[in-house]
Amino acid sequence: MSEGKGITIISEAVCEQVVGRPEAFVAVENVFSAMAKGTAYNFPVIREAIGHADALYGFKSGFDRDGMILGLKSGGYWPGNIDKGLTNHQSTVILFNPDTGELKSIVAGNYLTAMRTAASSAVSIAHLARKNAKVLGMVGAGHQSTFQLRAAVEQRNFEKVIAWNFHPEMLPKLSAVCEELGLPFESVTREELGVQADVIITITSAFESLIQKNWIKPGTHIACMGTDTKGKQEVDANLLAVATVFTDEVAQSISIGEAQHAVASGLIKVEDITPVGAVINGTHPGRTSEEEITLFDGTGVGLQDLAVASAAVELADLAEEKDQTNCINL
Amino acid sequence: MSEGKGITIISEAVCEQVVGRPEAFVAVENVFSAMAKGTAYNFPVIREAIGHADALYGFKSGFDRDGMILGLKSGGYWPGNIDKGLTNHQSTVILFNPDTGELKSIVAGNYLTAMRTAASSAVSIAHLARKNAKVLGMVGAGHQSTFQLRAAVEQRNFEKVIAWNFHPEMLPKLSAVCEELGLPFESVTREELGVQADVIITITSAFESLIQKNWIKPGTHIACMGTDTKGKQEVDANLLAVATVFTDEVAQSISIGEAQHAVASGLIKVEDITPVGAVINGTHPGRTSEEEITLFDGTGVGLQDLAVASAAVELADLAEEKDQTNCINL
Repeated sequence: MSEGKGITIISEAVCEQVVGRPEAFVAVENVFSAMAKGTAYNFPVIREAIGHADALYGFKSGFDRDGMILGLKSGGYWPGNIDKGLTNHQSTVILFNPDTGELKSIVAGNYLTAMRTAASSAVSIAHLARKNAKVLGMVGAGHQSTFQLRAAVEQRNFEKVIAWNFHPEMLPKLSAVCEELGLPFESVTREELGVQADVIITITSAFESLIQKNWIKPGTHIACMGTDTKGKQEVDANLLAVATVFTDEVAQSISIGEAQHAVASGLIKVEDITPVGAVINGTHPGRTSEEEITLFDGTGVGLQDLAVASAAVELADLAEEKDQTNCINL
Repeated sequence: MSEGKGITIISEAVCEQVVGRPEAFVAVENVFSAMAKGTAYNFPVIREAIGHADALYGFKSGFDRDGMILGLKSGGYWPGNIDKGLTNHQSTVILFNPDTGELKSIVAGNYLTAMRTAASSAVSIAHLARKNAKVLGMVGAGHQSTFQLRAAVEQRNFEKVIAWNFHPEMLPKLSAVCEELGLPFESVTREELGVQADVIITITSAFESLIQKNWIKPGTHIACMGTDTKGKQEVDANLLAVATVFTDEVAQSISIGEAQHAVASGLIKVEDITPVGAVINGTHPGRTSEEEITLFDGTGVGLQDLAVASAAVELADLAEEKDQTNCINL
């Protein structure tokens, strides 16, 4: 650990104050770019069912040489937390000095995880959706869906939001956000959602396809954000065969992401999947026609967490929120 | 991260104040016991050459259900640190609440890593060396060797310490400790060390055997503490074939530990290696004769780091060193 130097500790409250959607967007876009250039890479993911409190615990970690960001997000899922007045997902980001290995910052990770996940689908919309997209379709209405919605509507001039959720009683969460944003909202069937939407975000915990290929119209951009584990699935594997497929990280996309099923069944090959960073960098053209269906497989990588956490540290410094930012001498 | 609860931060200085050799010994002995019972386990190790500053960076992590200790040691080796006035090895232990996943403590890990490594060979001596061992042989005289020496001499009534090092000019480090402890010290050849020593500790960065099987006398206990990477080696693989072999963790012993070579060349089988925790628990008899050669392959596991760090947190609490222990509200 640091010898005589200070470490910065950023709380959930400070993260909420200093990291807004634009800051998260830039951080995630930059790190996707660095990943595609090969100057940033994720380390292997550790994920363990620890055999206590039904918890899934682990780390996502990596190094971004462009941003000089080194560290890990530690945490996991504790299903009993909600009964204790805590959120089930618990995350903490820990940053180290890449020049010396000294501990640098500890950053609360619950709010930032939601923000970086929302930024991921927003980056995909910014770079892949049709410019004239008018209807946004949301599949899923859990806690995370409102973050995805808010970040998505800033990318195009959407005129309407439509949504479907397995539990329709949760849809008012999304409609309330739309009301706040002055956007018409409509609850629809999944088939109707495919017919109307120009951009679709799926953000569920589904283990089978919720959206069939034939429901999707030409020119749609779909961001699949819920599949992060072997066995999970949100859309028809045949949809990936007709779409141009992008992802955050190809290795995760084919193993634990939405593309795992299409690759396993031979519908697409690994080489058919492009890192979205290549589009950001201009080394891949991205969407090439108004009829093309683009699909972004957002699996969630540790470097996203490190990027937004590093932004939080810098922004807290800039804001001179030192009174609310703890700086400890070790 | 924690919502409104405090996290405890323990500096290097506080660790040095509250964790002595007896405390490290008990913590490591307990966790070896839990590992052998299957109530504690290490997660996969992450180790990356990050391509910057020649650094090797990574994490060791695990969960001890007996001790209710969950977390990781993050850090690595930065070879340029010494020129910056920092130690090359940089470690930080991060502990989480196993009931909720909340961040609980941040503990400086440099001093504790040295202490838990010393405790490991000391535990092996306590449980495996002959009671009447008189001569301790040290192979290696680097920074860590003095920690191993101090912990070892507390386990038996040693009457003399003998030592060999590739760079003999470093031996005064060890002789100075012996002088302080009132123990005769002698610099010897490796062959002479084998002839005289009842207990041997190897603590080097060697990549080839330094100690040949034929130099070792019956009844010797040898703790190999330096081999923690594929390719490293401290003793003759044939020595493992004639010794009863113990280790901290079998999986590490055969992959990155001293036993990797003997197993790879077919001299011993995985089943020939016993977790030292089984001896602690009484489910393996350990040494069964005065002539038996016992060998402990100390590979170093994350649970040792978590155990001593958890002890540091508890002892700092007990000592009410709150003025020097930072407790932060997040």
